[in-house]
Amino acid sequence: MAILAFGVTTSHAQEEESPVAEYTEMVESYGAEYAPAFDFFTVSMLWTVIAAGLVFIMHLGFATLEAGLTQSKNTVNILFKNVWIISIGLLTYALLGFNTHYPGAWQIDGWLGIGGPIGDLNADGNDTWGYGGLSLAMTAYGDFIFQAMFAATAATIVSGAVAERVKLSSFMVYSTILVAIGYTVAGSWHWGGGWLSTLGGGDAAFYDFAGSTVVHGFGGAAALAAVIVLGPRKGKYTKDGKIKPILGHSMPLAAIGVFLLFFGWFGFNGGSVLSANPGPLGLVFTTTALAAAAGGIASIFVSWIVLKKPDLSMALNGLLAGLVSITAGADSVSVWSAVFMGAVGGIIVVFSILFFDRIKIDDPVGAISVHGVCGIWGTIAVAFFGGASFMSQLTGVIGVYLFAFIFSLVVFLIIKAVMGVRVSEEEEFGGLDVGEHGQEAYPDFSVSSR
Amino acid sequence: MAILAFGVTTSHAQEEESPVAEYTEMVESYGAEYAPAFDFFTVSMLWTVIAAGLVFIMHLGFATLEAGLTQSKNTVNILFKNVWIISIGLLTYALLGFNTHYPGAWQIDGWLGIGGPIGDLNADGNDTWGYGGLSLAMTAYGDFIFQAMFAATAATIVSGAVAERVKLSSFMVYSTILVAIGYTVAGSWHWGGGWLSTLGGGDAAFYDFAGSTVVHGFGGAAALAAVIVLGPRKGKYTKDGKIKPILGHSMPLAAIGVFLLFFGWFGFNGGSVLSANPGPLGLVFTTTALAAAAGGIASIFVSWIVLKKPDLSMALNGLLAGLVSITAGADSVSVWSAVFMGAVGGIIVVFSILFFDRIKIDDPVGAISVHGVCGIWGTIAVAFFGGASFMSQLTGVIGVYLFAFIFSLVVFLIIKAVMGVRVSEEEEFGGLDVGEHGQEAYPDFSVSSR
Amino acid sequence: MAILAFGVTTSHAQEEESPVAEYTEMVESYGAEYAPAFDFFTVSMLWTVIAAGLVFIMHLGFATLEAGLTQSKNTVNILFKNVWIISIGLLTYALLGFNTHYPGAWQIDGWLGIGGPIGDLNADGNDTWGYGGLSLAMTAYGDFIFQAMFAATAATIVSGAVAERVKLSSFMVYSTILVAIGYTVAGSWHWGGGWLSTLGGGDAAFYDFAGSTVVHGFGGAAALAAVIVLGPRKGKYTKDGKIKPILGHSMPLAAIGVFLLFFGWFGFNGGSVLSANPGPLGLVFTTTALAAAAGGIASIFVSWIVLKKPDLSMALNGLLAGLVSITAGADSVSVWSAVFMGAVGGIIVVFSILFFDRIKIDDPVGAISVHGVCGIWGTIAVAFFGGASFMSQLTGVIGVYLFAFIFSLVVFLIIKAVMGVRVSEEEEFGGLDVGEHGQEAYPDFSVSSR
Repeated sequence: MAILAFGVTTSHAQEEESPVAEYTEMVESYGAEYAPAFDFFTVSMLWTVIAAGLVFIMHLGFATLEAGLTQSKNTVNILFKNVWIISIGLLTYALLGFNTHYPGAWQIDGWLGIGGPIGDLNADGNDTWGYGGLSLAMTAYGDFIFQAMFAATAATIVSGAVAERVKLSSFMVYSTILVAIGYTVAGSWHWGGGWLSTLGGGDAAFYDFAGSTVVHGFGGAAALAAVIVLGPRKGKYTKDGKIKPILGHSMPLAAIGVFLLFFGWFGFNGGSVLSANPGPLGLVFTTTALAAAAGGIASIFVSWIVLKKPDLSMALNGLLAGLVSITAGADSVSVWSAVFMGAVGGIIVVFSILFFDRIKIDDPVGAISVHGVCGIWGTIAVAFFGGASFMSQLTGVIGVYLFAFIFSLVVFLIIKAVMGVRVSEEEEFGGLDVGEHGQEAYPDFSVSSR
Repeated sequence: MAILAFGVTTSHAQEEESPVAEYTEMVESYGAEYAPAFDFFTVSMLWTVIAAGLVFIMHLGFATLEAGLTQSKNTVNILFKNVWIISIGLLTYALLGFNTHYPGAWQIDGWLGIGGPIGDLNADGNDTWGYGGLSLAMTAYGDFIFQAMFAATAATIVSGAVAERVKLSSFMVYSTILVAIGYTVAGSWHWGGGWLSTLGGGDAAFYDFAGSTVVHGFGGAAALAAVIVLGPRKGKYTKDGKIKPILGHSMPLAAIGVFLLFFGWFGFNGGSVLSANPGPLGLVFTTTALAAAAGGIASIFVSWIVLKKPDLSMALNGLLAGLVSITAGADSVSVWSAVFMGAVGGIIVVFSILFFDRIKIDDPVGAISVHGVCGIWGTIAVAFFGGASFMSQLTGVIGVYLFAFIFSLVVFLIIKAVMGVRVSEEEEFGGLDVGEHGQEAYPDFSVSSR
Repeated sequence: MAILAFGVTTSHAQEEESPVAEYTEMVESYGAEYAPAFDFFTVSMLWTVIAAGLVFIMHLGFATLEAGLTQSKNTVNILFKNVWIISIGLLTYALLGFNTHYPGAWQIDGWLGIGGPIGDLNADGNDTWGYGGLSLAMTAYGDFIFQAMFAATAATIVSGAVAERVKLSSFMVYSTILVAIGYTVAGSWHWGGGWLSTLGGGDAAFYDFAGSTVVHGFGGAAALAAVIVLGPRKGKYTKDGKIKPILGHSMPLAAIGVFLLFFGWFGFNGGSVLSANPGPLGLVFTTTALAAAAGGIASIFVSWIVLKKPDLSMALNGLLAGLVSITAGADSVSVWSAVFMGAVGGIIVVFSILFFDRIKIDDPVGAISVHGVCGIWGTIAVAFFGGASFMSQLTGVIGVYLFAFIFSLVVFLIIKAVMGVRVSEEEEFGGLDVGEHGQEAYPDFSVSSR
């Protein structure tokens, strides 16, 4: 047992860094009765950063999904936009997002609390167990990085909807404002202690576990406004009222995207448990996976009936629809409710995509339907299956969607007036890759002349 | 130290949710002597759900590997089948798989115990520490989701082997039955306390750590039966006895698939430790990685000698062969035994693929060889290197393979009689993407006329 | 509470394996005061193996990045080399790397300590808590597998730089020697207790947290030597001094590669905390992500100004440049220092890529700039922002880069003399896929005649 004495070194051990001894001494200095708290904190924090990594990989999922479902002549542009969004999303979240998301002080009580850059979050006891006085099972940096990964998601959702005709520089400005201000303000209403969290005096608070409304709904509603301003792709809707399908160029890329999103969603929902508490963690993984599966199956059969063929795009969007539909209630509904919620989401998404196409809202990847429409369903369903207040859910949905829509509309209209939002017709025809970037995605391969 | 007092809030903390305090109080209610047990349980459960996520990503690996190694005209079909399998696999595992896999009661003792849908697994102490009375380091939902991810694997293996000519609707029916009943019954024999786990009165129990035989062998044997019924792809074997290679359309997709499978295997094998016990966990990660590496190297050199060129498909299949070969014994063999087992797997897979091609068993992705043949080797090898009983290993292999083969054969023959299992010759020539789905995988690109 | 008594079984529990009870008894046998140490060890070890998995996925990132940024006629070759490197890297690390990296005894004190194969690392208390007498928070196998995943990285960096003209067999020999001997010797100087770790009597030790210099710099410097010996691709630099761009064939593959590298870097840097200590873990995740984001943004704007267009390749390399630039100091600089370090890296990489092109060092993927040049910056910057000794940082950089360059030069020159290092002009023109492997990456698709 002598081998266990702290500080005994072997050839591999570096005496100056003895993390276990350091940890043990720290626990001892607080008193042995704190040991379970420290241990739980440590494992919860580990889960938080791993979950942040999983949410990060969703951005690769969005990038490949959007690229796959659009034409090859716009692929470089889409990938570039996704590099931009994750980068600017992380940076602006450090610059003002975090302290706007969790306002230190409200400019307008419960509604607006724009904050400044983060400082040294490892100071003042925020580094480890001091943050939140053990009422949060993560350090301030853990909280930061997990939420920062969420932030860029909203803007990414818009990216897909406006693909193939939006002007790059305009989108860069728009997405920066959306992620830095729009999303974080909406987030503060719910997660920052704002008005959504105090509905009914807090007893009937809006319930949105991981962000069906606050993240996905926000992105979907913002996308709708942007698409309305932007207009459809040239040739998508003919003068005689026909809808011309514009096919995506790579179904493997689309499938890679959806599977990576599914994978990352375990971090998105699972990390939203905000600890490694085994009870909710297992439930959330299970409801998340089953809702996705039910969404996929439902979309497969419904689209098969409606479109008379087994449609892969619909199957893929069905998985995502199931995921969005469970995100608000993943920790508070039963397994079979999750299956039902996912399945309904998978049905909704098929009709929603067809509906928006019919009213000439041109959304190349179905983002408005997947994130926006299923976000409504998922959030409201928590009232039916998870015990939330129906009125609060409705209020939250209306509040967030309206804000996202109007915020996006105003910002996009201003940008349109100042610098334009759409590429020229020639550029749209020739592709944004050559037009904006002077670079093709697949220079080696012949492109079919269609 | 005041900052540590539970319930002290900061601006970021939400007082009503204080997971650390909640956890600490729970531990205290049981007594401080239970603290190590609770802590170990919590970290083990975290690993279980992360491992489930890693096994999930194997399904993307299978999808891209199968797509890459087949022709571009069948890519949509392959991706669609993979969306189907993961979705139906998860759903049926909730509907009857879990309770068949771990029978509450046997209809035929040790052999058959068909169960019903799962209920609320968070009730009755199953939610956290009550499940298994601390004899399992996971909650019931953790157990469910980890095993559910395994379940679909067997059917996915068949998907690759029957690719490019199987009728979609028939495969959907077949794979549902296989994953819902076939796999879970075989699994119950080993993991559900069935006859394999009680061989020799339990003293000489069949040893299959993570499923070389019960998952991979099951899938490989089922695939063999399906391929025999289905017959080879048109033009693969000419009348004068020549074998015409039908090339895969994207080696990057195939490589992405194999690397993702390798990545996910850390969850497949590592999660099968069923806890975060550091000793076995480190060993399993190491044996898994080294066996894969040895399989890759062995395949590279052996195929180079046999085929006179360094073959990428064989190198990729060599990695997988190494992984299947270590799956039965990853926790119970030495590092250098793992290297040997993987290397032999890598050699076997080259000759097996050539052999099946010679006897006109047309398996486009080599699934029967990788999963079926290497599964036998990996399972038997545990008798030589891991101390298992040779007779029990042999018995288990014969029992599971025979069952999988016959079950698959009977189900597939019935489906053949009822609805047919093969697409028409025209559809096979034109591709299943257009034939079954009315959709191309790469509409933008010119296809070579070969 | 009876349900908590150890050994109580339910239908799902297997009595013989009761990991929680086993763990609890083990802790009790050491004494309750060790409980926090054991718990911290367990969660830290879990993080170590997960981080090893994340570093593994970086190899898929390298494979797809390199494939994407080169021509389609060399794709099979690149993928094959990446299968080779990860496999031989893992195997040689078991064979002699680990014990050379952490020398049991030095042949030349602090400089050279070639070791033999690993034995049973689960023996002699190395299996769990005995390894390092609790001064390391991982088992010997945890240490092994995490470091083994690092080892192959250096050789992979070279793989990209010599792509499209290096002879396969020669590269296989070269990379084996580089990873097995070159990298591990350099690593021993820093991590194995060698001369870099004892600079200034240990008080001014060289500081390279996760390997900006020891891994990335090593690979970059080795790549430079190899490229100088190998010469540029045919047609890259015309006789009249023009630089002809040779375009990569798939920007989605390149983007997948960079996002996966980013994802894996959370394991590369995060795992280098060598425990699950919440304070540094959160900081490292945050500095890593923000430096990458800053690198991406900086590269986007700088390359836009210099090249007059928003360049996707530069944006992607900017993310990687940010990551390399923070790797030496991820745990010891502030968040805004990390942003600055990443941004400077993103600027450097643009000019460095243009510079090397101008002096006719033909590096198809920019590996020398990303890993070599940014590795210098990242390491030196720790002196400015993280409190390291400037002279020690400079000494370490010079020492490692010089060694890597000379080692690579000598090995590559010997291989050149013995077996040649370059494919024939015909093979280079026709592509290494057909020339070396007799196999195309995309046989279904028409290749543009350019």
